[in-house]
Amino acid sequence: MSDETQELGITESKEHSPGEWYAEVVQKAGLADYAPMGGFIVTRPRGYALWEGLQNHLDGWFKQTGVQNAYFPMLIPESYLEAEKDIVEGFDPEVAWVTHGGHEELEERLAVRPTSESIITPFMSQWIRSHRDLPMRLNQWCSVIRWEATDTKPFFRTKEFLWQEGHTAHRDREGAWDETMTRLDQYERLYEDVLAIDVLTGRKPDHDKFPGADTTTSVEALMPDGKSVQGGTSHYLGTGFAEAYDVTYADEDEEEQLAHTTSWGTSWRALGALIMSHSDDQGLVLPPAIAPEQVVIVPIWQEDTREEVLEYCEGLQSDLEATGLSVNLDDRDERNPGFKFNEWELKGIPLRIEVGPNEVDDEEVTMVHRPDGENVVADRADLVSAVEDALDTVHAKLFAASEERLEEGVREAHGRADILGTIGQHGGYVKTGWCGEESCETEIKDQIAAEIVAVPMEDDEEHETPVHDTCGVCGEESVTTAYFAKSY
Amino acid sequence: MSDETQELGITESKEHSPGEWYAEVVQKAGLADYAPMGGFIVTRPRGYALWEGLQNHLDGWFKQTGVQNAYFPMLIPESYLEAEKDIVEGFDPEVAWVTHGGHEELEERLAVRPTSESIITPFMSQWIRSHRDLPMRLNQWCSVIRWEATDTKPFFRTKEFLWQEGHTAHRDREGAWDETMTRLDQYERLYEDVLAIDVLTGRKPDHDKFPGADTTTSVEALMPDGKSVQGGTSHYLGTGFAEAYDVTYADEDEEEQLAHTTSWGTSWRALGALIMSHSDDQGLVLPPAIAPEQVVIVPIWQEDTREEVLEYCEGLQSDLEATGLSVNLDDRDERNPGFKFNEWELKGIPLRIEVGPNEVDDEEVTMVHRPDGENVVADRADLVSAVEDALDTVHAKLFAASEERLEEGVREAHGRADILGTIGQHGGYVKTGWCGEESCETEIKDQIAAEIVAVPMEDDEEHETPVHDTCGVCGEESVTTAYFAKSY
Ligand SMILES: [Zn+2]
Ligand SMILES: [Zn+2]
Repeated sequence: MSDETQELGITESKEHSPGEWYAEVVQKAGLADYAPMGGFIVTRPRGYALWEGLQNHLDGWFKQTGVQNAYFPMLIPESYLEAEKDIVEGFDPEVAWVTHGGHEELEERLAVRPTSESIITPFMSQWIRSHRDLPMRLNQWCSVIRWEATDTKPFFRTKEFLWQEGHTAHRDREGAWDETMTRLDQYERLYEDVLAIDVLTGRKPDHDKFPGADTTTSVEALMPDGKSVQGGTSHYLGTGFAEAYDVTYADEDEEEQLAHTTSWGTSWRALGALIMSHSDDQGLVLPPAIAPEQVVIVPIWQEDTREEVLEYCEGLQSDLEATGLSVNLDDRDERNPGFKFNEWELKGIPLRIEVGPNEVDDEEVTMVHRPDGENVVADRADLVSAVEDALDTVHAKLFAASEERLEEGVREAHGRADILGTIGQHGGYVKTGWCGEESCETEIKDQIAAEIVAVPMEDDEEHETPVHDTCGVCGEESVTTAYFAKSY
Repeated sequence: MSDETQELGITESKEHSPGEWYAEVVQKAGLADYAPMGGFIVTRPRGYALWEGLQNHLDGWFKQTGVQNAYFPMLIPESYLEAEKDIVEGFDPEVAWVTHGGHEELEERLAVRPTSESIITPFMSQWIRSHRDLPMRLNQWCSVIRWEATDTKPFFRTKEFLWQEGHTAHRDREGAWDETMTRLDQYERLYEDVLAIDVLTGRKPDHDKFPGADTTTSVEALMPDGKSVQGGTSHYLGTGFAEAYDVTYADEDEEEQLAHTTSWGTSWRALGALIMSHSDDQGLVLPPAIAPEQVVIVPIWQEDTREEVLEYCEGLQSDLEATGLSVNLDDRDERNPGFKFNEWELKGIPLRIEVGPNEVDDEEVTMVHRPDGENVVADRADLVSAVEDALDTVHAKLFAASEERLEEGVREAHGRADILGTIGQHGGYVKTGWCGEESCETEIKDQIAAEIVAVPMEDDEEHETPVHDTCGVCGEESVTTAYFAKSY
């Protein structure tokens, strides 16, 4: 069995070799494998279950707030992409092209969608006639391809990735801006309440907006290695796309008006952030809200106690499942309890219940929290509330650690040397005054590969005045606070 | 308003111009639109909601019976497709090829998946080591492309379509055959219990099996125009794929054994069958189990009764929604009741509740069944059970009509002239003795474009002996009964 134990366990260190550690956790926890073509992965059942968990939460919130799902073709004619020059300039170098159907060469080549504005917006234009058709809120869950030539990192950098893309049209700026914020808030809620990750919200500098957008907003999550993950983006597109694709409506006075549009998306990168945030050298750690199995029950028996222990465990399982929890009773005969503990720690089940003859005699259960191994004993009679409390505690522990990381991870700096030194030494976010010129970002980027990942929202009262009167890089007058960070 | 009414209503006749009628229902009920590239459609929210309904049912059944969802790359290297020559011979002429990524030509071209055996089976080979890893049951919900040059018919004939494909591996023939039948049964259940369509189940003649399969089974649904729809297929693949891709396992004695595999799939073609089966010259008709809205409440008010009628309607809605029903209260001021009746008939809501001042005074509700316009009055106090009964009745009416169509649609014939004449006159299925030679099918196919869509299962006791001693086409000894039909 030692061979198998070896093979099962994580051998890399999260602290000392985070890249190798991440790849090992993804593979050994059964989340994904590398596909034969560079840049592609195979999402295994335990990985796909995480995606389904994310979908269930987000899709429910979308539907509660007026979004309808739809499905548009995965292939988009080149001429459609070109209709919006801002977009094609953004995506052209990253497009995978279908040139042949069967044995025939196509007259016009087709892009595998890198994003679907260019096919969805023309249809919205057809479907919207009157103010009564607005707001129109469409979303699709699909996969997209962006042909970037970089090292594959499952869920973080892959040529094909799963995501959702929302596309909406509204009567005016206010409606579209509210929509942009509603989706950003839902992404924040996904990270905080489901993934147990604290996030920073803000907007992108103008030079880093989605091509054609008026405002690009995002949630940013700080990883343990000090880098930021852009965890979801919500774009207020203004009337630019509406103009390019003729999305107009007749208002109450039968006057033709341009619609204001938005788009917003989040991808399986959220799973990458999830894995990287909480997991450790024993393997995956999952918060209960997204864990496919929230509880594993491991019986500890001898030949003569097997029957009573197992019966007791089955009672626990059925009481817990009756409340809607997903519970795995690991009653395999061919594995000992130590092996099972390791396996389910590796696979990230948030709470383990251990049951031996003592628990049966004392009418108790022993619960072990995955993140820190804390042991809690509860009366059998209080099982359901004790487990619910324990799961809440596991979530709270994970979120608290993430919150603390983010709080400590934002540091003020001013002056080139201070900014570079602070990022170099600590990673995380450096908060500084900024003049608004891209060249000041470029200076930092060229030296330490950190960029401005967020500036405060325009209506953010807390950040009404910049943190410094002058730009942290060039010393000119600052117009806003900027958050510099290295990012994924 | 007459312009709008005109535009809203179905103008084609299901009986006299079924093709045009179908296209009109799909578009006017808001299910789908034609995409700019021939062969592709845009699935609109009301169409996509049907797909989500189908997914919810089927995915739940799959998970209850041990299936895990996964996701494999949409692009497959040409060499992978070629590894199984039987498959590539089957799909090569229909593959869409990605040849360029960004500005670079790829070294090896990549197929947009036409089906995923060739990428999934090699991974199953890696993941399966011991008999303890079996059965392994994987499924993915995705879109596939088959580059067929035919006229587009939404949900029936499209180059891209949504489907699910299941792929499983088992220790032996028995396990794999049980799996094949489990999925076929679930497809049958989908048609009967969700879509309210009666189906014929059977297997395909050897010359029409999935390439490489041992046995291909299917559910076949008879459309009102007399053509058969292959509504879902479940393949017992034997050990052929396991051999080609080296799917082996160590048995209890550590001996290496070949796995037996299956694959099974159903696509949005099921939605095409749904639309075509039940809908009429007023538009879409949906059974309650898949309708996104099961009930529409239409208030009928005058200025002075508006408030009391609306309040009564809101009470109905909240009582019904509390039981989990999806209810649309159409309280639009700008439309009159007649317009609303037409609109919701067009869109297929199974049950309409009409509420005027009389209903309020008498504490009653008037319910109208979508399929036949039958009116039923119930006491307000019995609302929930009355609505549930009405929905069950609507399902039963739809299924009974489909069942009757299928019963009447199977006719016995013997001899070329009899077979051709019967299909020519009535459509439907012609049941005849068959010698097992493809040439006898070809003779019929060449003359009337009907083929053998099903032969009875080998273990079908009812069909143990062929319906005729001799082949209905050539007169040689028959080995089985065959069902000839024209098909979609
Ligand atoms: Zn500056
Ligand atoms: Zn014959």
